[in-house]
Amino acid sequence: LSEESIDRFRAEFLDMHPYDQSECFEALAEEKRHLVYSYLSPEEMADVIEHVDEDIVGDFIVEMNPTYAAEVLAEVATDDAVDILNDLDKDKVASYLTIMSDEAADEIKDLLHYEEKTAGSIMTTEFVVVTTDMTVKQAMRHLRKAAPDAETIYYIYVVDLDRRLVGVISLRDLIIAEGDLTIKDLMSERIVSVSVGDHQEDVAQMVRDYDFLALPVVDFQNHLLGIITVDDIMDVMEEEANEDYSKLAGVDIDANELNPFVSAKKRLPWLIILLFLGMFTASIIARFEATLDQVALLAIFIPLIAGMAGNTGTQALAVAVRGIATGEFQKQGIPKIIAREATTGLITGLTCGLAIWGIIYVWQGTFFLGFLVGVSITATLFVATISGALVPLLMNHFKVDPAVASGPFITTINDIISVLIYFGMATAFMQFLI
Amino acid sequence: LSEESIDRFRAEFLDMHPYDQSECFEALAEEKRHLVYSYLSPEEMADVIEHVDEDIVGDFIVEMNPTYAAEVLAEVATDDAVDILNDLDKDKVASYLTIMSDEAADEIKDLLHYEEKTAGSIMTTEFVVVTTDMTVKQAMRHLRKAAPDAETIYYIYVVDLDRRLVGVISLRDLIIAEGDLTIKDLMSERIVSVSVGDHQEDVAQMVRDYDFLALPVVDFQNHLLGIITVDDIMDVMEEEANEDYSKLAGVDIDANELNPFVSAKKRLPWLIILLFLGMFTASIIARFEATLDQVALLAIFIPLIAGMAGNTGTQALAVAVRGIATGEFQKQGIPKIIAREATTGLITGLTCGLAIWGIIYVWQGTFFLGFLVGVSITATLFVATISGALVPLLMNHFKVDPAVASGPFITTINDIISVLIYFGMATAFMQFLI
Repeated sequence: LSEESIDRFRAEFLDMHPYDQSECFEALAEEKRHLVYSYLSPEEMADVIEHVDEDIVGDFIVEMNPTYAAEVLAEVATDDAVDILNDLDKDKVASYLTIMSDEAADEIKDLLHYEEKTAGSIMTTEFVVVTTDMTVKQAMRHLRKAAPDAETIYYIYVVDLDRRLVGVISLRDLIIAEGDLTIKDLMSERIVSVSVGDHQEDVAQMVRDYDFLALPVVDFQNHLLGIITVDDIMDVMEEEANEDYSKLAGVDIDANELNPFVSAKKRLPWLIILLFLGMFTASIIARFEATLDQVALLAIFIPLIAGMAGNTGTQALAVAVRGIATGEFQKQGIPKIIAREATTGLITGLTCGLAIWGIIYVWQGTFFLGFLVGVSITATLFVATISGALVPLLMNHFKVDPAVASGPFITTINDIISVLIYFGMATAFMQFLI
Repeated sequence: LSEESIDRFRAEFLDMHPYDQSECFEALAEEKRHLVYSYLSPEEMADVIEHVDEDIVGDFIVEMNPTYAAEVLAEVATDDAVDILNDLDKDKVASYLTIMSDEAADEIKDLLHYEEKTAGSIMTTEFVVVTTDMTVKQAMRHLRKAAPDAETIYYIYVVDLDRRLVGVISLRDLIIAEGDLTIKDLMSERIVSVSVGDHQEDVAQMVRDYDFLALPVVDFQNHLLGIITVDDIMDVMEEEANEDYSKLAGVDIDANELNPFVSAKKRLPWLIILLFLGMFTASIIARFEATLDQVALLAIFIPLIAGMAGNTGTQALAVAVRGIATGEFQKQGIPKIIAREATTGLITGLTCGLAIWGIIYVWQGTFFLGFLVGVSITATLFVATISGALVPLLMNHFKVDPAVASGPFITTINDIISVLIYFGMATAFMQFLI
């Protein structure tokens, strides 16, 4: 493809949608990519770069000639440029910003200092504002001029002389309106905005609830700082869903990862932690060695009881993590949730406990072993359900990073609890078992 | 609030954003809701209903006077009306459609027959089309007339005389353009569309990749049937993320569920299945009772080995489920993925196996028991990683409902595999253990 004449490549490549361009581009080898850099202007390359997968886009920027890279970054939407630069070395960032035109560099610098995952870090400053005294006609003229550079022109924000946000008007309402009306007459003062420090997950929830295409970002004095558009919100939703999911699975999920050594490196931390927790479980059982020696049959139900505890805990954990993510649980309050989970755990525990008692009685013909396993299952499910819900809720309440509220951790904690309950009871009632 | 005069309630209520209206409305008791129905026109109520949580909106419709309900449904966006009706009894749906005006009923009927989770089921028919021969001025006039009823006017689709989709133009480009140009000159013929039977997950992925605000839906002859807007896509993303998540946790997640009996009913099916699978594991260990009787110490490592197998399987499962959901895995092909997972499993297995050998040697001072557990861990992690990835991939490949590719199932299968490997090896090498 890129071997042929420049004109033909340009004609074919530029006729594609930028996303398709990026897919093609990602598939090329490095020397071919360098050809593309020489064939495309920085503006054209910026469209491609905006759609490249965020895990690899930094590598492409670094391999470009620095002057070209700086020009590309200046053309990329400001919020995307900030995302890219956040993943690069500090001194590389500084050198790109130095080469870049002052205007573009200033816009990027303004955004670079916002903390990751806040509204500030995902907003863009390329938005259109109008003032209350403009007429519809004036506003439309202003809009036409601003349209090519703005991230969206479908919501137009209205500010006063201090750049304080006072209203919003949709392009839909604007084009229906009479030309002589003023913005003040038309605008809605019912503005929903987010604060620059708000967490991106809350922002995403708002956009989804209100069905907005964009949301204004303000500081504590209601000055308009930027806007967040729905395409960025979709990326946030995907990112947050992956995060919740990774938490449950105990692994940083990256389906793009092609190198098994890197995959193994991502999965090993949890596995090593579990190894030590598992050794702890083993040492607990070792203390009951005398009990085990007397009734070796006890051992055969260990995986059953530990497995049930692990799974019921994961169910409760999953409900809690999603409840926290969607904001439902904040509304309900911890005591109410725990009371509900405890009742749920008691119901599932009693059901499973009775079932296993019956099954073991029929299978082994031993009344008391079945009773012991049944009671252990009931107690275990009750405790495991509560711990599965309580750990993430407490972590969230105290704003601790909920890594310990992850699936493998809950599972292993519940393993330990279940083994303690089971062997504790077996030892206490040994006279009935032999 | 609703006790007071009608005028005051209306003034306050209608000043809120529809989402806030819906939140207030959901919090009301039934008799208050009936007051609201009498205070608000069907048009006004429709705005509220569009934002009510989809799990409960059906109950509200049913409690309304049927004529009022039909009028509300006629005013709700067609795709939302279809979503609501899909959850109601067939005869209730029929009666609402009979009361409704023919025009509204026909639009709804057209959409009702699309299969759930296809592009057809989430699209709306309220879109704006123009023809190639219109000038910009004519198009704008047409747009102003159509704007109040259309779901979006920001993308305008261009059709030929047979209603075949031939182009698309954004409102942004339209308002910048000179008034005398024709649509044909301006439109982009590089159209990305979806087919009416496409799965909603694929549609969501496209909207996210291309950063679209809307996507046209066509039949196999390229006739434009409807459009899907980004607000519906966000709901799909949330729904699909919840689904993947539920799969991993083995429970249908509903953080809104307040009744513990209903929660328990949702969690019990998996727990009962696991109980029987657990009994199967127990019966396998029971076959090794002679081995256990000789070396009771073997039992203490059962939870460790089973737990490691379960967790590594869940990690591989999670990567595979997300890989399938995001389309990454379809690109890579099953053999390549399995080869990579097998290598990953071997690396993690060898690392953990060597670690546990060392730990047990130091702790118990027995060289061979540590070796046995270490080799078991290595073999188990290798097999469990492959099975965690292979099961969902095969299910997806054969288009089987991947309920068996869920977290609890994989965990339990891997429990069984790990116990077989561990006790099989212990029995084979018994002479070294005693």
